[in-house]
Amino acid sequence: MSNLDAVLGSIDKNLDDSIERLFDLLRIESISTDPAYASECQKAAEFIVADLKTIGFEASVRETAGHPMVVAHHDGPKDAPHVLFYGHYDVQPCDPLELWDEPPFEPRVKEMPDGSEQMIGRGTSDDKGQLMTFVEACRAWKSETDSLPVKVTLFFEGEEESGSPSLIPFLEANKDELTSDIALVCDTTMWDRETPAISTALRGMASDEVTIHAASRDLHSGFFGSAAANPIKILSKILAGLHDDDGRVTLDGFYDGVPETPDEIKEMWDGLGFSESAFLGDIGLSIPAGEKGRSVLEQVWARPTAEFNGIIGGYTGEGFKTVIPAIASAKISFRLVGTQDPDKVRDAFRDYVQSCLPADCSASFEEHSGSPAVHIPYDMPEIQKATAALKDEWGKDTALIAMGGSIPVVGRFAEYLDMPSMLVGFAQEDDRIHSPNEKYELTSFHKGTRSWARIMAALAE
Amino acid sequence: MSNLDAVLGSIDKNLDDSIERLFDLLRIESISTDPAYASECQKAAEFIVADLKTIGFEASVRETAGHPMVVAHHDGPKDAPHVLFYGHYDVQPCDPLELWDEPPFEPRVKEMPDGSEQMIGRGTSDDKGQLMTFVEACRAWKSETDSLPVKVTLFFEGEEESGSPSLIPFLEANKDELTSDIALVCDTTMWDRETPAISTALRGMASDEVTIHAASRDLHSGFFGSAAANPIKILSKILAGLHDDDGRVTLDGFYDGVPETPDEIKEMWDGLGFSESAFLGDIGLSIPAGEKGRSVLEQVWARPTAEFNGIIGGYTGEGFKTVIPAIASAKISFRLVGTQDPDKVRDAFRDYVQSCLPADCSASFEEHSGSPAVHIPYDMPEIQKATAALKDEWGKDTALIAMGGSIPVVGRFAEYLDMPSMLVGFAQEDDRIHSPNEKYELTSFHKGTRSWARIMAALAE
Repeated sequence: MSNLDAVLGSIDKNLDDSIERLFDLLRIESISTDPAYASECQKAAEFIVADLKTIGFEASVRETAGHPMVVAHHDGPKDAPHVLFYGHYDVQPCDPLELWDEPPFEPRVKEMPDGSEQMIGRGTSDDKGQLMTFVEACRAWKSETDSLPVKVTLFFEGEEESGSPSLIPFLEANKDELTSDIALVCDTTMWDRETPAISTALRGMASDEVTIHAASRDLHSGFFGSAAANPIKILSKILAGLHDDDGRVTLDGFYDGVPETPDEIKEMWDGLGFSESAFLGDIGLSIPAGEKGRSVLEQVWARPTAEFNGIIGGYTGEGFKTVIPAIASAKISFRLVGTQDPDKVRDAFRDYVQSCLPADCSASFEEHSGSPAVHIPYDMPEIQKATAALKDEWGKDTALIAMGGSIPVVGRFAEYLDMPSMLVGFAQEDDRIHSPNEKYELTSFHKGTRSWARIMAALAE
Repeated sequence: MSNLDAVLGSIDKNLDDSIERLFDLLRIESISTDPAYASECQKAAEFIVADLKTIGFEASVRETAGHPMVVAHHDGPKDAPHVLFYGHYDVQPCDPLELWDEPPFEPRVKEMPDGSEQMIGRGTSDDKGQLMTFVEACRAWKSETDSLPVKVTLFFEGEEESGSPSLIPFLEANKDELTSDIALVCDTTMWDRETPAISTALRGMASDEVTIHAASRDLHSGFFGSAAANPIKILSKILAGLHDDDGRVTLDGFYDGVPETPDEIKEMWDGLGFSESAFLGDIGLSIPAGEKGRSVLEQVWARPTAEFNGIIGGYTGEGFKTVIPAIASAKISFRLVGTQDPDKVRDAFRDYVQSCLPADCSASFEEHSGSPAVHIPYDMPEIQKATAALKDEWGKDTALIAMGGSIPVVGRFAEYLDMPSMLVGFAQEDDRIHSPNEKYELTSFHKGTRSWARIMAALAE
């Protein structure tokens, strides 16, 4: 029996223990965006470090101005490549809580009508479950060979869901320690339940929060209605004006650096058998809402967009209150492609907001995060090796896809560590990440772990 | 000393006791719109009934399907007119709580830099303080003459701030008991701190709550952004389209029944010395936001409007969440004038919303309240008598004004009891009703009580 076969056997045999370890991590409520959960983030980092030490990693919790990083090292054979594996241990908030069938931090395995099994709970898919696939692969290699086929650095962030404010300073301060031959990032999806995928293009993001300030206090709409500026009205006009009738974003210069998708890429995508009606039907919709004349895949993979992620103003409780509020605010995110510059997009948005304001009103802004789009060359040798390893595991060719979401760390690794990334993930599109009842397929977890064991071996060749 | 002089003296002498009684009522948290405070509404009604019995009223708490009514009767001299005095014991919610300098239900008297005194707390002005001016006037008449100069029915509602759902059924069921020669309604403002006012026109209202439903669950904006309909975007377009560039409401037929203000009324208003810049400057604004080509007084007194009172959708907590929400909703109120029909306006709004929806999205509505505008003839004899009484108290001619706010009960009295109303109030425009730090001038309370004592005498003549 080869080493790899022994390692895969070990993964199969110890699956229940692997699940238990993941569940212990999932029970920690590491919501990074809400300061109330800071101690839980710390706890998650400490939990992971303690676990990694049992596998033989030299692991440590590294404090930052925000939530801590986890960094761990394990040597590999002489001349073996050095890989950095990235994941994040923080999770999204859980609201609306009432839509969860079970408490979000009490993970469980649920058998589905089709016989498949799902791990359910916040962070199962994004990203604790994915992160642990690599850790469990390392554990199996160690238990069967007392070594790893490649030199491994693990780098786990605790602020991915809240804009990664500490990431760049940390990369700058620890450049030598972190720089490896390639980063392996496990925060993406498969093409479908049977087909593995490597993501070679990721949209970037610029996000901003705007608050419109009108009167100096909340007003009675009977006394002041129509004469006093209403910030909800102003904000509505601002948001309504951000797209034209064809679904294009109206900001000055927004499409600078947006490339047309090459025909050969469109053809490859056409060959994937993607169903627009199934994609939209699964979420209760039927009409593509984006730019006219673009396919849904193009809309979500290759076109930039402006989305409104939250809005609030005035009285929002039960019943009615005839108030004209003093303020109203919205959270807005722009998905970027090509060479669109996040700072320029944010500046154009702010200029646009200012141009919409009556002279006696004002706007304030709170910047959240920004990262350019990322494009990875299809012909990178590591992609070839990983593709072969994934085919051994899944029995199907790997889909080279784009991603609508942003994984800013990939751009950061390129910019600050001059390190390429390879994005291999085992999540499914319907994992309800960021939503109630988030899940991760047990198959994703099990075969994902086996996939990493294979990829590590393949990269060593 | 005349009876009236003795009564006025009694009011002056017992002012501190009057304040204490009002404060006991203000401490009851009778927020009608929030079901959590139902028992407090009951408590307020019972408190008032117990107090009225000490003055010799035949008083009772009258249950309804919602919060109870208070009804009380006291006989007057043979052939004296029969007046019904209306007020409401319920109050608005207190959010945002953090903007209150002191807890809203711990009333206090605060001395201001100019030497005046303010009673501060939720309900001081709207409407518990106003309601008690009449009760205290009755108490003084009783203590000095053991009688009242007119026959009095008191009628206090507990649902005025939440759309008065029980009002019409109660008026219908108790028509004979409640119908009087005239209703006195104390829920309006003075012209300024020195000038009493009687309101002869009140805007009506139609209010509605709309919820836009898009996807069947919250979505990750990376996966679905631009391809999936965003309900915040749809709602923004709906709200933004409700006014044209001249500030006019765009609904079909909205201006049916809206009269042009007669020149003589405009001239009377011009004579009031109203300062647009002071009115707006007091709330931190400077530019009239309503219909172009209309004065601020016309905008708030004589023109209809659409106001957005609340909006919510998506993630509104701290930090950022790249979500496309499943729903977004807004609370909207239309102020009406002339013979605008609240039901027709609401229907036109709903038709408009439906016309804005993509075919795969839907809207649901929750109706809140509706009442037509009210116009009272200037030459009603009771207005002449009250005007003279008010001049005796304040030393200035009474301003006959319009009101931007809605007092639906006035229309209900006319429609269901065939009873005219006279609106005399002692609130000030800057009382911050419906807002944090609501106040009522001690002078409003004291001289308001004296004014009612005088008006009762005048009506008896």
